[in-house]
Amino acid sequence: MKLNRRTFFKSGALGAGAMTLAAPAIAQNRRELTMVMAWPHNFPGLASIAYNFAKYVEELSDGSITINVNAAGELVGAFEVFDAVGQGTADFYHASPMFLAGKWQPVTFFGLVPFGLNANEHCAWMYFGGGEELQDKPYREMFNLKGFTCGHTGTQMAGWFNEEINSLDDFKGVKMRSSGIAGEVMRRVGASAVMIPPQEIFTSLQSGAIDATELCCAWLDSANGFHQYAKYYYAPGWQEVNSAGEIGMNADLWDDFSAHEKVIVRHAVQSANSINIGEWPYYNARAMDTLRNDHGVDVRLYPDDVLEALAITSAEVVAELGETDDYARDIYASWKEYRDTALRYSALVDYPLYRARKIAFEAGA
Amino acid sequence: MKLNRRTFFKSGALGAGAMTLAAPAIAQNRRELTMVMAWPHNFPGLASIAYNFAKYVEELSDGSITINVNAAGELVGAFEVFDAVGQGTADFYHASPMFLAGKWQPVTFFGLVPFGLNANEHCAWMYFGGGEELQDKPYREMFNLKGFTCGHTGTQMAGWFNEEINSLDDFKGVKMRSSGIAGEVMRRVGASAVMIPPQEIFTSLQSGAIDATELCCAWLDSANGFHQYAKYYYAPGWQEVNSAGEIGMNADLWDDFSAHEKVIVRHAVQSANSINIGEWPYYNARAMDTLRNDHGVDVRLYPDDVLEALAITSAEVVAELGETDDYARDIYASWKEYRDTALRYSALVDYPLYRARKIAFEAGA
Repeated sequence: MKLNRRTFFKSGALGAGAMTLAAPAIAQNRRELTMVMAWPHNFPGLASIAYNFAKYVEELSDGSITINVNAAGELVGAFEVFDAVGQGTADFYHASPMFLAGKWQPVTFFGLVPFGLNANEHCAWMYFGGGEELQDKPYREMFNLKGFTCGHTGTQMAGWFNEEINSLDDFKGVKMRSSGIAGEVMRRVGASAVMIPPQEIFTSLQSGAIDATELCCAWLDSANGFHQYAKYYYAPGWQEVNSAGEIGMNADLWDDFSAHEKVIVRHAVQSANSINIGEWPYYNARAMDTLRNDHGVDVRLYPDDVLEALAITSAEVVAELGETDDYARDIYASWKEYRDTALRYSALVDYPLYRARKIAFEAGA
Repeated sequence: MKLNRRTFFKSGALGAGAMTLAAPAIAQNRRELTMVMAWPHNFPGLASIAYNFAKYVEELSDGSITINVNAAGELVGAFEVFDAVGQGTADFYHASPMFLAGKWQPVTFFGLVPFGLNANEHCAWMYFGGGEELQDKPYREMFNLKGFTCGHTGTQMAGWFNEEINSLDDFKGVKMRSSGIAGEVMRRVGASAVMIPPQEIFTSLQSGAIDATELCCAWLDSANGFHQYAKYYYAPGWQEVNSAGEIGMNADLWDDFSAHEKVIVRHAVQSANSINIGEWPYYNARAMDTLRNDHGVDVRLYPDDVLEALAITSAEVVAELGETDDYARDIYASWKEYRDTALRYSALVDYPLYRARKIAFEAGA
């Protein structure tokens, strides 16, 4: 029996001692739901999040909720998943919140911010710093969505180039694929930044339509073959200290869900997040070895004065973003206060730790 | 009705279409289980993991599994939780696996290793690098336990001192609380390292029984009041790049669990892990501000040559640990290969990123 997905799942209204038969009551009210991803099937580190979430919901609900996962372009395009879910054409999405930035730029704070929060700090702000609540209101009021942060690439790379970056001047005139406000920062320092969906970057690089690109990090970038058309791989990923993914669902459907169904969704999201937190560092480290050893990729560093200039320009752009609307003002105030606290801590504690590991590594320990 | 917890939960054997009544079948076979923690109630960032796990299991099972959480000393002491659960006196524990090191030192690889893996890399190795499987065999065969990594403090501090650390010689004769193989490293460089349970560190520092101590990081250390008796707070936490916590359960009980109950436990663990990944960075950053601003704590850095010497000594001790027994040989081989890959990646990618954020922070961006 397939019920309308708006049907209340009523287990909460029923007494626990009232039955003698044994199969789960949850099986009576099946939900067959649809998820749309902003990526192809098997896109490294991203498609797995959607598939894991769907599997976890199904197994936690003992089969009463099944979720059919669709890749970008199957039901809707990568940038259309938010509309599709808000309108009820699909029930869930997994995407980068950045793909909503064309409609509402402050979504950037929930995805990635230049010189911003790392993966764990982003979880810190979302779970403990008020981020979730600050996201709930605009998502519901503007897009009819309920979003959950899920999936974190961790430390990214600055991008792929065929020319060395030794000064700010070296960005002048470079036609570079870059997303979100990082693209605006690149424009302000002289680059010609363009936004291209992930699937189209390779052909743009191959054809010479762009000179340089950033997407993510060793695992995803190498799966996209960027090393075939660019020689230098620059660190660090100032523009995406981390990129947070997001599972979202139709807000009406969320309201229809029983307390128990909500619990299942929430823990499936968090469980998928926990696994993904381990997935990226595992495969990124392996992929970087392959890029360097098998493909001769030359990893370089942006000079310190370039990083400082990018940081100052980024701070200007982020502050302007925080003035977008009333939602953005509240979000930016909360984010900025924790981000500054986190960076102060990081400079004292995380930075020396990563430096100590580098000393250990270089000493052969 | 309270059933014996060895009773099979038989929902798996029952057809899904066989019933008409509505309350969840799971409610028929209630399990009332007991968890023991290696910490006091409300121990920052650690007790919350056990409480969250218990809550998540209860809500995911729709109340059919309830878990009663006990602090250290209520049913058994902090170092006795593994025996209690292996023997069935209690059902679950949350502890640092390090507290099992007195019985089996190689457990260290699942907890913390000097110059080892950060929180996300530890998840990487456990989930994707074979860590879980390598833990399962010895835990079952030696201790009748099934363990799950859960909870990660993240970056720690080197410890509290009243004397400056400017050279290796400065460790000579220092009576310092330090745990696990970090204690052995400290002994080899001349300190008199002693293992004291967390609850007793404060009084030992107060009475002068120890000169210095390390425990964790800003949040937990300040809650323990160490700043009242030590002036310098040294970074970085070379000895505990991260400290992984662990939820474990009686292996017979795990075998008795239905497939659905196993799914609930696994996702409750992962969900609790995901939340905790955000909990530490949030409260650590706040606590560090309070320590410095309100208590005048002086944060210092170990010199590079001290770190290099500690790294080389640590590598010797860790390699010896890897020779403990056949289990340890397999674990060490797997861990070391990924750890070296991860540190190579970190030196190229993470270190420059944290350096870039420090540049941004110092530029006021």
